[in-house]
Amino acid sequence: MNHEHISTAFDIELNELRQSILVMAGKVELMIANSVKSLVNRDTPLAEQTIAFDHEVNGAEMAVDERCLELLALRQPAARDLRFITIALKIVTDLERIGDQCANIAKRARELNEEPPLKPYIDIPRMAHWVEVMVKEALDAFVQGDAAMAVKVCKDDSFIDELNNQIQRELLTYMIEDPATISRALKLNYVSKSLERIADHATNIAEMVIFMVKGKDIRHTIV
Amino acid sequence: MNHEHISTAFDIELNELRQSILVMAGKVELMIANSVKSLVNRDTPLAEQTIAFDHEVNGAEMAVDERCLELLALRQPAARDLRFITIALKIVTDLERIGDQCANIAKRARELNEEPPLKPYIDIPRMAHWVEVMVKEALDAFVQGDAAMAVKVCKDDSFIDELNNQIQRELLTYMIEDPATISRALKLNYVSKSLERIADHATNIAEMVIFMVKGKDIRHTIV
Repeated sequence: MNHEHISTAFDIELNELRQSILVMAGKVELMIANSVKSLVNRDTPLAEQTIAFDHEVNGAEMAVDERCLELLALRQPAARDLRFITIALKIVTDLERIGDQCANIAKRARELNEEPPLKPYIDIPRMAHWVEVMVKEALDAFVQGDAAMAVKVCKDDSFIDELNNQIQRELLTYMIEDPATISRALKLNYVSKSLERIADHATNIAEMVIFMVKGKDIRHTIV
Repeated sequence: MNHEHISTAFDIELNELRQSILVMAGKVELMIANSVKSLVNRDTPLAEQTIAFDHEVNGAEMAVDERCLELLALRQPAARDLRFITIALKIVTDLERIGDQCANIAKRARELNEEPPLKPYIDIPRMAHWVEVMVKEALDAFVQGDAAMAVKVCKDDSFIDELNNQIQRELLTYMIEDPATISRALKLNYVSKSLERIADHATNIAEMVIFMVKGKDIRHTIV
């Protein structure tokens, strides 16, 4: 087998790795959508299903990790490919933790669905939509090596922080006006914070993508 | 240079990597202690200092990352060493995020120090102490390859979760009894949640150590 062949086989393996990370990301995006849907539609079976689905994301993380180690050991990649694989290792950890946050949201939904609704949910589904887009764009940036898209994700994070602050301020007024709402308001606060943490994970992924593409570390500088 | 020599040089490099991760962990442990001390002692200059210190932790993460990539590229390690380096890459990300949480605690301390104290802080420093021990033990387990110590860290996490729940329940009673306390109680709630997140990072590190030592993945199974 000459070098040309090895390189081609490795390219196929890297593409398969990219695909399996995208499949994992798709599972996580579904969890974001369904966890918030289970809250908004008061759909407790969907909440249960989302909590159970977290196992699939965990399994996907372990499989990608294992594959990255195999590729590092067998292919001994250099430069750009090495950076791609080591960043893949870090990215799947973020994706797995996003799954954990979605399971947490679904658990709060399950509790909130047992009580009368505090208010119509307007801002939380809106926030969830934007967070889901951030995760999708961060992963697209990763597989396409698109630094410009990754920079956009980093910038969007401050919008999510602002939305989270706004939701928290609104919930605070409910709590002050009527202490009977405090328990429910705290749970909604928790949902909003979980979405904000998911956006942080998307931002972390995007920062690593910029590092991967540009080869220099912009973490801790642009956001 | 024969194989013996290469192996020895690489061993020295791996030891240096271990040391630099321990130094980074030491900075993070100091941040945990100081962030909570700035709250308990109402020491706003210490809070400012802790927030500024986060840059040092960020710098340490980038340096360790860079070194791991160099070792992967130059030494092309296999088996146990490969697993050690790839897990080092993931662990420093957790350490860096612990630093972020400490900076968040210090920011809440800075705000809380401007207002009359809600209550004497008993449980939060106690929780911070245990969380700091968990981080220290998780890192010791990593550098010593000590799976038993890592298992202990994973088990301690449920104690921290329980402490966090207890603190949250207590703060809830303050909020219900007197809405004027809500804003301060929410900030203390936030501090408690940040400590709980730090414990989660320590647990994540410990789970990766068990994977490193045993070679099989116990993440998502034992806790």
